[in-house]
Amino acid sequence: MKIVSTIPEMRTSSRAAHSRATRIGLVPTMGALHEGHLSLVRAARSTSDQVVASIFVNPTQFGPNEDFSRYPRNLKEDCALLEREGVDIVFAPLVEEMYPAGADATWVVVEAMSNRLCGRSRPGHFRGVTTVVSKLFHIVEPDLAFFGQKDAAQVAIIRRMVRDLNMPVTIEVCPIVREADGLALSSRNAYLSAPERKRALTLYRSLLRARAIFDQGERETGKLVAAAKTEFVGEPAVRLDYFEIVDPHTLEPEPMIRKRALAAVAAFVGTTRLIDNILLEP
Amino acid sequence: MKIVSTIPEMRTSSRAAHSRATRIGLVPTMGALHEGHLSLVRAARSTSDQVVASIFVNPTQFGPNEDFSRYPRNLKEDCALLEREGVDIVFAPLVEEMYPAGADATWVVVEAMSNRLCGRSRPGHFRGVTTVVSKLFHIVEPDLAFFGQKDAAQVAIIRRMVRDLNMPVTIEVCPIVREADGLALSSRNAYLSAPERKRALTLYRSLLRARAIFDQGERETGKLVAAAKTEFVGEPAVRLDYFEIVDPHTLEPEPMIRKRALAAVAAFVGTTRLIDNILLEP
Repeated sequence: MKIVSTIPEMRTSSRAAHSRATRIGLVPTMGALHEGHLSLVRAARSTSDQVVASIFVNPTQFGPNEDFSRYPRNLKEDCALLEREGVDIVFAPLVEEMYPAGADATWVVVEAMSNRLCGRSRPGHFRGVTTVVSKLFHIVEPDLAFFGQKDAAQVAIIRRMVRDLNMPVTIEVCPIVREADGLALSSRNAYLSAPERKRALTLYRSLLRARAIFDQGERETGKLVAAAKTEFVGEPAVRLDYFEIVDPHTLEPEPMIRKRALAAVAAFVGTTRLIDNILLEP
Repeated sequence: MKIVSTIPEMRTSSRAAHSRATRIGLVPTMGALHEGHLSLVRAARSTSDQVVASIFVNPTQFGPNEDFSRYPRNLKEDCALLEREGVDIVFAPLVEEMYPAGADATWVVVEAMSNRLCGRSRPGHFRGVTTVVSKLFHIVEPDLAFFGQKDAAQVAIIRRMVRDLNMPVTIEVCPIVREADGLALSSRNAYLSAPERKRALTLYRSLLRARAIFDQGERETGKLVAAAKTEFVGEPAVRLDYFEIVDPHTLEPEPMIRKRALAAVAAFVGTTRLIDNILLEP
């Protein structure tokens, strides 16, 4: 496994791979890898000739009061995990490599969707995501790129960006990986104390509550959301950010569910912001 | 010469060319070709294995009261000219191919520069340019792309976009081509009546006036601009939009000229908006 930290070296490597008609699969990550990331790597491994995993904690997708500086970083452990999974190349650039002085004038923005779900409570977040993903696509030139369904809004926005800008890459989405008790894996789970870890299940429980009522035939979004929110009532240490049911492609709210819908939740457990979602299939 | 109108066909063609290690040179145009465009094609021809010229009047870079609908279109003549110059592929998509319903959510924006020079009087113009150029780059995947110095702000903004987003393409810029009397070639010159054609020279004369005083040693931008503007005084039928002297890379105003500077002018001759520029080299 090769670890590459500069853009020219990464580009040269990809160009050489493409000249051998190699199909490159990219797994973009911010490191602090867990089984969710590794499931992406395995999907890439099974469909690509060469797997590139990027590790880059992207400053432009964090708000000024968010956890950029304390976001977990453990490149050595991450590389060990990736090597075990058969990754060919780790692209781990420094911030100055990706954003040298003055290289922050340009943004890629999916305007119609960037202020939905997490975009409303994290202004500028998705603009940072789409910009850095564009950069990674231009540097690595992957044929396939793998994202987790856990960030459902991110998935919808990146799909839209790729389509609108005709980017020559296929987006593959892998299911959420959960702990035995249902908690969605997240690098930010590492922030949770033991009692918080228990309370963090509230998010998944609220989703299951919505699904239970949905399975009984309820199709009115308002009623499903109201039921889901009751899970938060007895949990003052868990502060709901949003619980929404939206079209999974456009992220627009759906008053009545007629086709596949995305139920998405975000909440603060202590100071840790977590997200989760499920799909509702009529 | 092959004429391609769909994105998949263009992409397949470029991928096949790249698999033969062909260097693709792209000349993006809006058609209505003149010698300026053909000079770009010749530059592409001399440095690329395969030359692709795109012809697309891009609606997203026109304002609501601008000349999108009456912009000159003559695909047949354009193709004859391009064939004579040895172009390999003309990519001429319809608007619905480039912007199918709903494919207008995503924008590429060079925020720090998009409201400078023409961007101030044409809000949204450069956002339209950078977005469509991104799309063309993703579709054609050129190694080199050729632009005219005539649109100096466009050149600076596209260079910045390519650098900021790490696009794998080299931007080549070709000098302004002028008529015998100095008028910069422009597809919009076709709008001019005979008397307007004469008055249109005011733009170039104002640039020459600034350069003459610059050559005498004047380095204060304010004085150079004031002198240049006197050319417009006796021309009530020519309405100055701006005359500015800026850094050619950042488009920031320069109060004193210490290194290469861009003198740029835009003016309405009747209802036709024309632009021109020269570089001032200390």
